[in-house]
Amino acid sequence: MSMGGARAVERCDALGVAPYSDMEGGLFRAYLTPAYSHAQAVLRGWMEEAGMAVHLDPAGNIVGRYEGEQDGPALIIGSHLDSVRDAGRYDGLLGIMLGVESVAALHAAGRRMSFPIEVYAFGDEEGSRFPSAMLTSRAVAGTLDPAMLNTTDCAGVTLDEALRAVSLSKSNFAQAKHAPALAYLEAHIEQGPVLEAKGLAVGAVTGIAAQLRFAVSVKGRAGHAGTNSMVLRRDALTAAAVMISKVEEVALAGAVDLVATVGTIEAFPGAANVVPGEVRFSIDVRAGTNADRDAAARSILDECAAIAVARNVGFESSVLQDLPASPCDPSLVALVDRAIMECGHRPFRLVSGAGHDAMVMADLCPTAMLFIRCEGGISHNPAERVSAEDCETALRVMQRFIDTLGDTAHA
Amino acid sequence: MSMGGARAVERCDALGVAPYSDMEGGLFRAYLTPAYSHAQAVLRGWMEEAGMAVHLDPAGNIVGRYEGEQDGPALIIGSHLDSVRDAGRYDGLLGIMLGVESVAALHAAGRRMSFPIEVYAFGDEEGSRFPSAMLTSRAVAGTLDPAMLNTTDCAGVTLDEALRAVSLSKSNFAQAKHAPALAYLEAHIEQGPVLEAKGLAVGAVTGIAAQLRFAVSVKGRAGHAGTNSMVLRRDALTAAAVMISKVEEVALAGAVDLVATVGTIEAFPGAANVVPGEVRFSIDVRAGTNADRDAAARSILDECAAIAVARNVGFESSVLQDLPASPCDPSLVALVDRAIMECGHRPFRLVSGAGHDAMVMADLCPTAMLFIRCEGGISHNPAERVSAEDCETALRVMQRFIDTLGDTAHA
Repeated sequence: MSMGGARAVERCDALGVAPYSDMEGGLFRAYLTPAYSHAQAVLRGWMEEAGMAVHLDPAGNIVGRYEGEQDGPALIIGSHLDSVRDAGRYDGLLGIMLGVESVAALHAAGRRMSFPIEVYAFGDEEGSRFPSAMLTSRAVAGTLDPAMLNTTDCAGVTLDEALRAVSLSKSNFAQAKHAPALAYLEAHIEQGPVLEAKGLAVGAVTGIAAQLRFAVSVKGRAGHAGTNSMVLRRDALTAAAVMISKVEEVALAGAVDLVATVGTIEAFPGAANVVPGEVRFSIDVRAGTNADRDAAARSILDECAAIAVARNVGFESSVLQDLPASPCDPSLVALVDRAIMECGHRPFRLVSGAGHDAMVMADLCPTAMLFIRCEGGISHNPAERVSAEDCETALRVMQRFIDTLGDTAHA
Repeated sequence: MSMGGARAVERCDALGVAPYSDMEGGLFRAYLTPAYSHAQAVLRGWMEEAGMAVHLDPAGNIVGRYEGEQDGPALIIGSHLDSVRDAGRYDGLLGIMLGVESVAALHAAGRRMSFPIEVYAFGDEEGSRFPSAMLTSRAVAGTLDPAMLNTTDCAGVTLDEALRAVSLSKSNFAQAKHAPALAYLEAHIEQGPVLEAKGLAVGAVTGIAAQLRFAVSVKGRAGHAGTNSMVLRRDALTAAAVMISKVEEVALAGAVDLVATVGTIEAFPGAANVVPGEVRFSIDVRAGTNADRDAAARSILDECAAIAVARNVGFESSVLQDLPASPCDPSLVALVDRAIMECGHRPFRLVSGAGHDAMVMADLCPTAMLFIRCEGGISHNPAERVSAEDCETALRVMQRFIDTLGDTAHA
């Protein structure tokens, strides 16, 4: 019996420190940094050990290819090598490691599928170096807007300069475009508490949630906290507080995959002895379908506007981000369900509230995602944890998925 | 008929710009700055013109003295010359100007009261240069803790250095202590909307509100805004929002002079796509009596603790500031009422939610305060406005107060 799941976790842990991190006392591995190159070098060795031919593509992704019996469209298994600042060790990297283990198991058994398998380690899913995210998977999917490459990191280094430092260049970046592919499979920690709450090791992702993000401003009248009697106030923060409660109420009343979050808030002038004259906050609304998301957003904005009228304060909102839902391929989702069941687990479907390279790859080929339970739903945090046992389950589900995809491809 | 009210306003306006302000395009006159010295020089001239003998006291206050028929305890009329950054022109200064006009009217009429009158322009009511406020009135009242003089402004200049620059010194500061006084009278803009709402030009202040200020921390669990389903969240900000609504509810349900304010709020980590794991905010509670204030604060903290339990988040609070109520002298408040009535206006009493030099001077002698209506209740803001007509009313009430105090003193 394979222990690939445990090894995948160990390898993530091994890459969680210097020189695979550029941050003292924590993990930070941004695209095209020294830590990124060090991690690529180690990954290259592991891929070769698993029987793959490895190359660096023009977008700076490491790609390992395991040939099939025939030279048809490949199954791509991927996730991202980069991390946020002070990250957990499994977000992204675990999906790559499980891809490597999937191939390693075939290689150890001397097996080849009818199709080639390629394991991709994407470079910039997190957008942790340049303002735009997922440029590297966009290049592979062939959906890159070349204008997005004219970007600069916070230290003033252009993307082209960063590429040239590793012997690549902006002008060749789009050549990372992949030929038509059989499917894209991405395993990823859930980054949420649903699987844990359900007592499940893994779940099939039905798609990436639609997302709408607003910037909101509430304008009342600032005044001295001691001299402005309660009934005469136009307090922007007490108005905002009622709005924030309403955001939560609307989200709780909606679809099970509907979430709405106020993550940032600022009160102005922001002194303990001044009634706030203005409050700005963000509203992030996500749901499995565009319709659910839009209905909730409409309801939230209408309710906030009514609260503003009732409290005689101003209310303005503007859209910061509008990402439509990106469904996974229904027949591949069914295949993930079936693989989970055949591995002796209860199939369970959930929406991914977070974005992933899979949503970009959906433009190239049918996609599937497998979520893995993570402790307390904690992610983007050094406290991120997965169990070796769950990763073993995930690996077996992926192997079953690959086998079944082979059968399907043959049929 | 005197037009001293209008002249008081004009003089405040004249001192609202350079060189009487150290701020480009607005008013900022901090204690012992060049703007402060320039304003003192002009004030000295106005005081002398009104028949006063003027000196700079050891705490850096300008004092004008108008002798009485007898050399008994003086009536002190005062307020502060300093301002907050980007201030209005009337907060503090107007009270000094009305003191000067009160004396100017006696001088013009060739009258003297039985008691001397001293007009004080205090230096640091706002605490706009050194962290502690009202050191200069504390020195006059004889309640100064010498340790408070070991203080430094944000540029690293010590109080002693600032004093030496104007030929004063920390070691003599406490010598500003005044002999026993007859009474202290301070006229001040209301800095709130109550008089305007009541349609009144002036009101008698019954005392300075008791004040209690807390720092509050709500601790939930940070998580990805897309992946944490609503029912599994421990969102520190939605919990804080309910608490803020409760603060408002308790204050609205309490005594008419009870106010409670959340003026600052911060959410951590503070990203649009992260459920807040911690929120910190301030609660400022004030009321006319210590008992009303303490009951409201207790109720607010109990309700917040219950909300925290219900939402499975942590709640901690600590006291930042605890100032007991400082009542004005009841017989002087009655004298202000009477003066208002005798000037043909409806007497009206209100609590001062803001602190003033009067609360410090209460340790030296009986105090009275007269509030003047200000437009929209706006203060600490360039939009601060008073009408010349209201200032004329205030001046006549002060003159009547002085006359009646003279009668009382004679009786």
